[in-house]
Amino acid sequence: MSVTAQLSLLDHHCHGLLRGDPTDDEFRLLATESDQLAPDGLETLDSPLGLAIRKICAPLLDLPRHVSIPLYLDRRAELGSAEVDRRLMHVSGTGRLLVDTGSQMVPLSSPAEMTSAVGIPADEIVRLETVAETLAPLVGAEAFPETLTAALADAAGSAVGWKSIIAYRYGLDLEAEPPGRPEVVAAAGRWMAEAESAGRYRISDPVLLQFLIWAAIPFGKPIQFHVGYGDSDVQLFRADPSRATRFFTATIGSGASFTLLHNYPFVREAAILSQVFPHVYCDVGVVTHYLGPSASTAVRQVLEIAPFNKVLYSSDAHALSEHYLISAQGWRRGMDRLLDEWIADDWLTAAEAERIAGNIASGNAHRLYRLPDRP
Amino acid sequence: MSVTAQLSLLDHHCHGLLRGDPTDDEFRLLATESDQLAPDGLETLDSPLGLAIRKICAPLLDLPRHVSIPLYLDRRAELGSAEVDRRLMHVSGTGRLLVDTGSQMVPLSSPAEMTSAVGIPADEIVRLETVAETLAPLVGAEAFPETLTAALADAAGSAVGWKSIIAYRYGLDLEAEPPGRPEVVAAAGRWMAEAESAGRYRISDPVLLQFLIWAAIPFGKPIQFHVGYGDSDVQLFRADPSRATRFFTATIGSGASFTLLHNYPFVREAAILSQVFPHVYCDVGVVTHYLGPSASTAVRQVLEIAPFNKVLYSSDAHALSEHYLISAQGWRRGMDRLLDEWIADDWLTAAEAERIAGNIASGNAHRLYRLPDRP
Amino acid sequence: MSVTAQLSLLDHHCHGLLRGDPTDDEFRLLATESDQLAPDGLETLDSPLGLAIRKICAPLLDLPRHVSIPLYLDRRAELGSAEVDRRLMHVSGTGRLLVDTGSQMVPLSSPAEMTSAVGIPADEIVRLETVAETLAPLVGAEAFPETLTAALADAAGSAVGWKSIIAYRYGLDLEAEPPGRPEVVAAAGRWMAEAESAGRYRISDPVLLQFLIWAAIPFGKPIQFHVGYGDSDVQLFRADPSRATRFFTATIGSGASFTLLHNYPFVREAAILSQVFPHVYCDVGVVTHYLGPSASTAVRQVLEIAPFNKVLYSSDAHALSEHYLISAQGWRRGMDRLLDEWIADDWLTAAEAERIAGNIASGNAHRLYRLPDRP
Repeated sequence: MSVTAQLSLLDHHCHGLLRGDPTDDEFRLLATESDQLAPDGLETLDSPLGLAIRKICAPLLDLPRHVSIPLYLDRRAELGSAEVDRRLMHVSGTGRLLVDTGSQMVPLSSPAEMTSAVGIPADEIVRLETVAETLAPLVGAEAFPETLTAALADAAGSAVGWKSIIAYRYGLDLEAEPPGRPEVVAAAGRWMAEAESAGRYRISDPVLLQFLIWAAIPFGKPIQFHVGYGDSDVQLFRADPSRATRFFTATIGSGASFTLLHNYPFVREAAILSQVFPHVYCDVGVVTHYLGPSASTAVRQVLEIAPFNKVLYSSDAHALSEHYLISAQGWRRGMDRLLDEWIADDWLTAAEAERIAGNIASGNAHRLYRLPDRP
Repeated sequence: MSVTAQLSLLDHHCHGLLRGDPTDDEFRLLATESDQLAPDGLETLDSPLGLAIRKICAPLLDLPRHVSIPLYLDRRAELGSAEVDRRLMHVSGTGRLLVDTGSQMVPLSSPAEMTSAVGIPADEIVRLETVAETLAPLVGAEAFPETLTAALADAAGSAVGWKSIIAYRYGLDLEAEPPGRPEVVAAAGRWMAEAESAGRYRISDPVLLQFLIWAAIPFGKPIQFHVGYGDSDVQLFRADPSRATRFFTATIGSGASFTLLHNYPFVREAAILSQVFPHVYCDVGVVTHYLGPSASTAVRQVLEIAPFNKVLYSSDAHALSEHYLISAQGWRRGMDRLLDEWIADDWLTAAEAERIAGNIASGNAHRLYRLPDRP
Repeated sequence: MSVTAQLSLLDHHCHGLLRGDPTDDEFRLLATESDQLAPDGLETLDSPLGLAIRKICAPLLDLPRHVSIPLYLDRRAELGSAEVDRRLMHVSGTGRLLVDTGSQMVPLSSPAEMTSAVGIPADEIVRLETVAETLAPLVGAEAFPETLTAALADAAGSAVGWKSIIAYRYGLDLEAEPPGRPEVVAAAGRWMAEAESAGRYRISDPVLLQFLIWAAIPFGKPIQFHVGYGDSDVQLFRADPSRATRFFTATIGSGASFTLLHNYPFVREAAILSQVFPHVYCDVGVVTHYLGPSASTAVRQVLEIAPFNKVLYSSDAHALSEHYLISAQGWRRGMDRLLDEWIADDWLTAAEAERIAGNIASGNAHRLYRLPDRP
C-alpha cells in the first residue's frame, strides 16, 4: 500500500531554485555539503545522493536509469534548468513552499519566482542573520536593537516565520534569558567596527545571534533552527539541539514556536525535545536527499519518540530541483514502509496511518504557520 | 518462536502505581515526559505510546483495538485504576519489582502496597537525593556528612540498591575522587541557607550530589544512574554516560556496581561502558514503552556490544500500569525478533538464546542485587 | 548474490598477531576492550564477539559450531596460535595489511613477521606517540621539536602512514593552528621532567600531542586518528570526531589526509566529515568484530552519507587472528546484505555495486596510501 502517494507536501523549509544553468562542477558542488570537489579527480557524486539522481531523476530527463553522472549532466545542460525544474518539481508532489530567502551564496529564485516558474504557491521565511547583516551598515550600534526590531516588524508583514543559523555561527548553547540592551549595543559596536574594516558584515557574536532570536519571539511566528549536519562551518557537537534545553524551558508560553531542522545525527535528541516541549517541532529535511537509498533511516528515527502532531516535512532543497524531488520521494518511501509495517503488525488502522501521514505531510505545518487556505 | 514468552521479568527499576484514579489530563501528563499538554488542544497521546496503549491495553479493558484515547480514558475511569492495574500487571508477566521510592510528584504506592495490590514481590531502591532532602531541614551543615551516612546505613538495612538523579540536577560529569569533607560542609551550608529562605530543599550542588554517590559506595550495593531521556530538567548532552568514564575507572574494585538506566539516545555509549567496566550494567527501560512500535530499536542497540551478562531489564514504569505492560511487551517483542534472527542465521542455538534472554529478564539482576530467592 | 565474496581486502588499520600462545584468560582479555575479566566468575566472552568466535572460528579449528568458550580455548591451545592464525587468516581473504606498530602492551609480530607467518604483504603505519616516547629519553626539551621531525623523516622512508591516539590521551579538540615552537619546548620540558621522575615516558600533554600531528602533516602521508570506542582510557564524548572540525578546515590543501578509525558510536559524524572534507576518510573497523551478529549496523551507517570513494576497510584486529577473520566476514556480510537490497530496489546495477564494494575493500586505500602494486 502507499499511504503517502496521494499526499501533497507542504515543504516548510526550502531554498530557491538556481537562476540559470550550472556548469557541471557547479552542479556537483550544489549536490554535496562540501565546498570542495572530490580529491584526485574522483567523482564527487559517487555518493548516496549520486545514486538517487541516477535512479530517480535520470528517467525524467529521458535517460536510462543509472546513467553515469557526466551523461546526466550533459542531458541536464541540454534541457536547461527551467525545463528540468518543471519536470522534477511536478513529480515531487509539492503543494506549497516556505522559502528561506536568507542564503544567497549562489543566485536563487525568490518565492514569487518559484511560484511563477513551477506553479507552486510559496511563502517567505526570513533569515534573522540576513536582516541584521543587511541593516548593520546603515545604523550605529546604539540604534541597532530598535532598528532591528523595526526591521523584523516590517518583515513580519509578509513572512510566515523566521530562520536562525546560530548553529553554524556559534552553536546551540542558548541562554535562558535575553541579553540586556547594553550588552547588545556593546556587541554591536564591536561587530560594526570589525565589519567596517573587514568590509564584510558577517554576524557571529553569540550575544547578537541570541538577541536576534529574542527579538523575533514576540512576533509569535515559528522560528526555525538549523540543527546538525551542514557545511564545513558547522561543528556538529555544538549543533546538538539539547544544548538549547534551558532556552526551550524559558520560552514556554512566549507564544513563539521552534522548529528543529534536519537534526542528523541528532534526530533522536530533536524528537525527544519535540515530545518534552509543547512549542518545539522537528523534521528530517536535507538528509531525505543526502542519504539517498538510506533516507528511510532518518524518517524512522524521528517517529520513534516524537508525537505525530509535532513532526513536519521539509526538503531543505537548495538550488537544485533534484533535491526537492529526491527528498519528497525519500520521505514518501520511508513513511510508506514504516506505516505499512505498523499496519501489518496491527499498531494502527490504515485510516489512522493516513491521518498521521497527512498531518506530517502538511497538516501540522499548516496549523503551526497559520497558513491561510489557498483560494 | 517466542524465546521470552515464558520468562518472568525482574523489573530492576520502576516506580509505584498511582494511588487513586487520574483525571483524563492527569493520565495524559503521566504518559509523556512533557509537563505540558499538547498545544492548541491537540491530543497529547497522538504518539507512539498512544498507539501502544490503544493496541495493547485497550483489549484488556474490554475495548476494541485502536479505540480512541478519549474512549479509552472513559473506560479506564469506569473500571477504576485498581482493576486496570490488576489486569495489566498480570499480563505483563512481571515477577519481581525493585521500586525507586524517591519520586513523589504524584502519590504513588509503596513497594508493600504494590505487592498487596497486584501480588508481585517488591523491594526498595532508595533515592539518594530524597534521603538528603528529607534530612537536611533537621541537621546543620557541619553534621550533614555523618548524618547522611548514618541515614544511608539505616536505609541499607532494607534497600537493595540506590538511585542517583545527578543527571537531572547537574549532569554526569563525575569526578574521579570524592569531595573532601570541608568542601561538602561548605556546600551543605550554602544549600541549607538558600533552602531555608526558599522553603524548599532541592539539592542541585554538584559537590553535594557527588558526595551522596561516594557516601553510598561503601555499602557495596548497586547504584542506579538516570541516563539520557527524561523530563525537561534533563539537558541530554550533559546526561551522556561517557562523561562519567573517569569516575568508573576510579571505582573499579570499590565493591559498588553501577546500573545505567534508560540511556536513550546514548544506548551505544552505555553498552560500551558495560563492556569496558566490570562494575557497570545497563538497560533500555522507559523507552521500551515510550517508543511504542519502535521499542525493538533500543533493545537491539544495547545488544550490539554489551556483554549479555551486563544487560538488565527494567520498565521505569511510573504511576500507570500501562507503562509496565507496554514495556514488558516491548522488551519481549524486541528480544524475540532479534534472537529469532540470530537463531535463523545460526549465530546461536535456541537453548543459548533462552539462556541469554533469561539472564537479561531476571538472572543478571538477581545476581547483581543479591536478591534472596523467594520462599 | 555475494558482491564481496571474491574481493581481497586491504586492511588499512590493524595490529600484529600475538607472539606465542595466550593463556585462556589472556585470550579473554584480548577479546574485550575491558582490562578486567567479567565479574563474579562470569564468562567474559558471553558477548556478541563470543558468539562470533563460536560460530565462525570454531569450525575452522575442527570444532562444532557454538562450542563453549572453554572448549574453544582448549582446542586453540592444542593447535597453537601459529596454526590457528594460518587457518583463520587464510579464510579472511585479506590481501594486504597496513600494520600500526605502536601498540606493544602484549608482544606482537612485526609487519615482516606477519608476512612470513601468514603470507600476506604488510606495510607499516608508525604511531606518532610511540616515536615521541621512544625519543624523549634521549634528547632535551630544546632539541625535541627538530629531533622529532628528523625521526619522522627517518620513519617516513618506509612507513606508508601515521597513527595518532590523541583521542585516548586528550580527546579530539584539535586546534586550527599548530602550537608555536616555544610552547612545544616548554611542554616538552614539563613532560620530560615528570617522566624522568615517574620513570615512564607517556605523552599526554595536548600541546605535544597536537605538535606530533602537525609535524607529520608535511610528509603528505595519511594520518590515522583513533575515534570513539576503545579501552577505559577513552572518554567517548571527547573522542567525537566533529570536535576536530576547525582542524580539518585548516588542513585542507596541506597535502595530508586523515582517516577516522572505528568511529562507533560516532559513525554518522565521521561519515559527514568524510563528505564535507576532501581529505577526510572513514571506516568502521574494530566494531566489525566486536558487534558480532550486529556488525552490519555499523557497515550500513557509514554508507548512509559518506561518498563511496571516502570509505575504507579495516579490521583494527589486535593480537588475535579471530579479530581479522570475524571483521572480514562482518564487513562482507554487511556489504552484501546492503548492496543486495539496493540492487533489489534498483538503486544501482550489480556492476556498480561491485565497483563500490571493490573500492571500499581495497581501491580507495590503495590510492590514498599510494601503495605500489604488488610485484
